[in-house]
Amino acid sequence: MRHSAIYPGSFDPLTVGHLDLIERASRIFDHVIVAVGVNARKRTTFTAGERMDMVKASVKSLKNVEVDSFDGLLVNYADTKGVHVLLRGLRAFSDFEYEFQMALANRKLAPAIETMFLMPKETFTYITSSTVREVMELGGDISQFVPPPVKRLIDKKIKGRA
Amino acid sequence: MRHSAIYPGSFDPLTVGHLDLIERASRIFDHVIVAVGVNARKRTTFTAGERMDMVKASVKSLKNVEVDSFDGLLVNYADTKGVHVLLRGLRAFSDFEYEFQMALANRKLAPAIETMFLMPKETFTYITSSTVREVMELGGDISQFVPPPVKRLIDKKIKGRA
Amino acid sequence: MRHSAIYPGSFDPLTVGHLDLIERASRIFDHVIVAVGVNARKRTTFTAGERMDMVKASVKSLKNVEVDSFDGLLVNYADTKGVHVLLRGLRAFSDFEYEFQMALANRKLAPAIETMFLMPKETFTYITSSTVREVMELGGDISQFVPPPVKRLIDKKIKGRA
Amino acid sequence: MRHSAIYPGSFDPLTVGHLDLIERASRIFDHVIVAVGVNARKRTTFTAGERMDMVKASVKSLKNVEVDSFDGLLVNYADTKGVHVLLRGLRAFSDFEYEFQMALANRKLAPAIETMFLMPKETFTYITSSTVREVMELGGDISQFVPPPVKRLIDKKIKGRA
Amino acid sequence: MRHSAIYPGSFDPLTVGHLDLIERASRIFDHVIVAVGVNARKRTTFTAGERMDMVKASVKSLKNVEVDSFDGLLVNYADTKGVHVLLRGLRAFSDFEYEFQMALANRKLAPAIETMFLMPKETFTYITSSTVREVMELGGDISQFVPPPVKRLIDKKIKGRA
Amino acid sequence: MRHSAIYPGSFDPLTVGHLDLIERASRIFDHVIVAVGVNARKRTTFTAGERMDMVKASVKSLKNVEVDSFDGLLVNYADTKGVHVLLRGLRAFSDFEYEFQMALANRKLAPAIETMFLMPKETFTYITSSTVREVMELGGDISQFVPPPVKRLIDKKIKGRA
Repeated sequence: MRHSAIYPGSFDPLTVGHLDLIERASRIFDHVIVAVGVNARKRTTFTAGERMDMVKASVKSLKNVEVDSFDGLLVNYADTKGVHVLLRGLRAFSDFEYEFQMALANRKLAPAIETMFLMPKETFTYITSSTVREVMELGGDISQFVPPPVKRLIDKKIKGRA
Repeated sequence: MRHSAIYPGSFDPLTVGHLDLIERASRIFDHVIVAVGVNARKRTTFTAGERMDMVKASVKSLKNVEVDSFDGLLVNYADTKGVHVLLRGLRAFSDFEYEFQMALANRKLAPAIETMFLMPKETFTYITSSTVREVMELGGDISQFVPPPVKRLIDKKIKGRA
Repeated sequence: MRHSAIYPGSFDPLTVGHLDLIERASRIFDHVIVAVGVNARKRTTFTAGERMDMVKASVKSLKNVEVDSFDGLLVNYADTKGVHVLLRGLRAFSDFEYEFQMALANRKLAPAIETMFLMPKETFTYITSSTVREVMELGGDISQFVPPPVKRLIDKKIKGRA
Repeated sequence: MRHSAIYPGSFDPLTVGHLDLIERASRIFDHVIVAVGVNARKRTTFTAGERMDMVKASVKSLKNVEVDSFDGLLVNYADTKGVHVLLRGLRAFSDFEYEFQMALANRKLAPAIETMFLMPKETFTYITSSTVREVMELGGDISQFVPPPVKRLIDKKIKGRA
Repeated sequence: MRHSAIYPGSFDPLTVGHLDLIERASRIFDHVIVAVGVNARKRTTFTAGERMDMVKASVKSLKNVEVDSFDGLLVNYADTKGVHVLLRGLRAFSDFEYEFQMALANRKLAPAIETMFLMPKETFTYITSSTVREVMELGGDISQFVPPPVKRLIDKKIKGRA
Repeated sequence: MRHSAIYPGSFDPLTVGHLDLIERASRIFDHVIVAVGVNARKRTTFTAGERMDMVKASVKSLKNVEVDSFDGLLVNYADTKGVHVLLRGLRAFSDFEYEFQMALANRKLAPAIETMFLMPKETFTYITSSTVREVMELGGDISQFVPPPVKRLIDKKIKGRA
């Protein structure tokens, strides 16, 4: 049996914490799908295309990691893919409650799908996409918070604006 | 002395967790007022009328439960009603802090009014109105999250849109 | 219908926070039973008799408050008393989880019994019996943490030791 | 590649929550080892033998679940077994912090071993071994908290005492 | 060496909790700079000017307290001022996580700058600027939540609107 | 004015997290007193002498750090020393509540004494003395958890036992 897992998120943008989690997952599972949520109703700083590019550029060397996008209910997407393990990172308390709520709602909607939690490297515990966006908007240096390919894509975007 | 309590909320929409709490309260108090907040400044997915209808349709069989609406400060409303017990559900940690803050602010504004907390059935612990709205918007099945009359009202509304 | 509630605890010793909660409860319910747990297996700093005396001396002026003791399962005691509302104080997060666990275990054991939570005055939020015991053992002044009758009983006990 | 995972614990006693987690794990992994900690320094209510019997009797029908015991450092045990995934249940906040601390300490001691977290059925969220022990000692009925084989073993032990 | 500290915030509006913290800081440090954040992207209820006036009017009697404003990254502002201690109040759990995240992000951006936390008077624990705004908007009396000069400035503003 | 602060603890044993905090404090304050609690009633794994030695050996290079011991109430000790700032590390949530309770109790006992909180390096967030003791007792390698001089003292003690 091939063991697959889906790691869903908005990755707006992908942080070093997300990448750390993907690397850990790729060592545990035979196949990991990073699923970028492209819900049209949720406003994001980076477009779906930009977010897909960021993830793809950052996981290039991980051979068993696939990057995909999904819209609609996550459990429906997982079903379509034939994968019944969802992965989520737990960094801190505020995650905990939100993640549990989501995992239980998903379990009600699709009892055969299980959510598993992994812990990122403790150094990355407090790095969130929203911190990255805030530092970025105030003109700060984000190179410690995002993988190098993400840094390059963001720099290009900022230059494009100017 | 008749013991009355007010259970305030926005009920946007009413969930099975809210209904469970109302049933518990109706067994403890002689009279329970479910008070739907209709603050014009707060944007809700369902109109005040729809939210009132949802609650009314769901509590029909509970003889000592009254459904009402209020605007302005909750403690002023309670005062007008001559009720000095407010009821709130505590499901999880994130509730805890927000609820305490509100209860203490209310205590400062009206020291004679007391807030009491009840715990919903543990199965309903992680069901929130916002989860219901999210699942609904993504086209998922919400029948496990809301009472049947609420399900019917939402289905009708969605059909009306199409 | 007379509305009664049981406020159980070990009260080792009774603090100003406990007393505040008893006063609030006595304004909401027709009859409040403060039930001192005398579980022989739990080691306490004050004897069951001393703890009963502390509570009795402190609630003397509250006419609808009764002081009693119980051993064994709390829900069995409540059943014997014909009371189906348990009261507990929620001061802070660590309480929250323990209290919920107890309340849910009690609900499983006796579904008709409901636990309600009240919030003590915020000034008393961080006063616990164990802080009182620690300050007492280090020779500090506990008069801000316990009601005057408790202070007198403790002083007498300490003198007795010397 | 066969995917194995170790689910370590003291299981003093095994609860319905633990069993739920083992069942979930047995659907995700090819092989699950339930590892009963038999640290001589930790005092337990049930002996290592009793705890092993409880787990064995409860998982009999799960063909890919093995029951074993371990002493010393968990990461050394995992290493000996050639398994690099540890499983732990996350029920509530208090778990969260303790589990993270342990997982990080284990990661420092053995970087190749990863801890994954699973969420038990929400009905079992607040059932802990210590609640079971407390209810048991007060003479309450524990049949809702433990699997039937555990109930039978405990009943036999209690009879043996009398 | 003169010991200085920066107390940054949006103070929208300044509460009695903020003022309590400023007073405590002024007793510990030789010089305290209250730094009002005037990030143009963040929408506030009170203008930068109004918020500066509120703070200035409230700290007038504290001789070693300076009121200033800043835009951009806080750590850059601190650097410009030559101050390497940031002060933040910790009232409750929700603060805790957000504050830690910010403090760690700031530490990554400027390792020489340290964030220290102080606890406001427990009576003020649950007073937040957003509670003040909510009570204010519902027409409630905010005099227990803000210092008298802030109350006067708000009253004037409300009259101006009418 | 010379700015002094007391950093109290049991340091049983001193961890790399404690040392990190002492180094941070020594950069903020003119003078830091590390105060080892030697409460005879609290059972510790290391003797008061051993704990003093561990701290002394680890802070040798920090010229403005003094190591001392205290018994009895911490606020009385601070008073004797003429220091009115207490320092505590906040690593995680469980710390938070305990620390706040202690800080508020101390504030009641000695209103002029203020507790300030510092955050250790995030890598050290989950290292506690009790984890160190547990790993040590199970024969694991603690060199990542304690400063080298503490490692040497513990090794010597363990050899002495054998």
